[in-house]
Amino acid sequence: VVTDLDTAIALYEEDFEMRLVHRETIEAYAVEAVLLDVGESHVELLGSLGPESAVEEFLATAGPGLHHIAYRVTDVDSELHRLVAAGHQPLDPQPRIGIRGSRVAFLEAASTGGVMTELVEPA
Amino acid sequence: VVTDLDTAIALYEEDFEMRLVHRETIEAYAVEAVLLDVGESHVELLGSLGPESAVEEFLATAGPGLHHIAYRVTDVDSELHRLVAAGHQPLDPQPRIGIRGSRVAFLEAASTGGVMTELVEPA
Repeated sequence: VVTDLDTAIALYEEDFEMRLVHRETIEAYAVEAVLLDVGESHVELLGSLGPESAVEEFLATAGPGLHHIAYRVTDVDSELHRLVAAGHQPLDPQPRIGIRGSRVAFLEAASTGGVMTELVEPA
Repeated sequence: VVTDLDTAIALYEEDFEMRLVHRETIEAYAVEAVLLDVGESHVELLGSLGPESAVEEFLATAGPGLHHIAYRVTDVDSELHRLVAAGHQPLDPQPRIGIRGSRVAFLEAASTGGVMTELVEPA
């Protein structure tokens, strides 16, 4: 989660030499998301689009920084079901649509050692 | 950074189905580090070995959770030099030895959008 998206993009593109591969506005959460390639993984930058944004509370309390870790899965429904059965707390009861048409599910940090954890099934 | 290393290992091995590939005690920092494979990347778990540990302050103030992100580089000296010249603040003036005989350098979070960033040149 970043304070200013353009400043953060400059940091990752110019200083860290990563390639920007996607940029998308998520109106429902009032965030703008940017993906940059690093090997087979991505850095995702999330910027706020206003006081109603889903990342405003995080920025206000923790400041900019690491927000969550996402892992690619092949079947988000079965993995979410398995992890909830193992005692993990889902943020939402069912997967929802993420960026690039992916299907995603989050596990609350309280059940995963303080690390908010996202499962991503790419489109 | 985790509160209890064995509990965290169980989470990542059993629930997240990652393979533990390395475990090492770093006496100089009073931490125990564990690496688990995820694709071509790793999750690194860091546990404290006592009140003198380098992660005790983090645990006391932030609690367990995401501590830093590490990127593999081919030449840590030249990358550190380049990034310091670009205005980033190094934690140490020169790279030091990390786990598995790697050479590592950290950039302070204040110069990288709140994300402590590690460069790792594998052995």
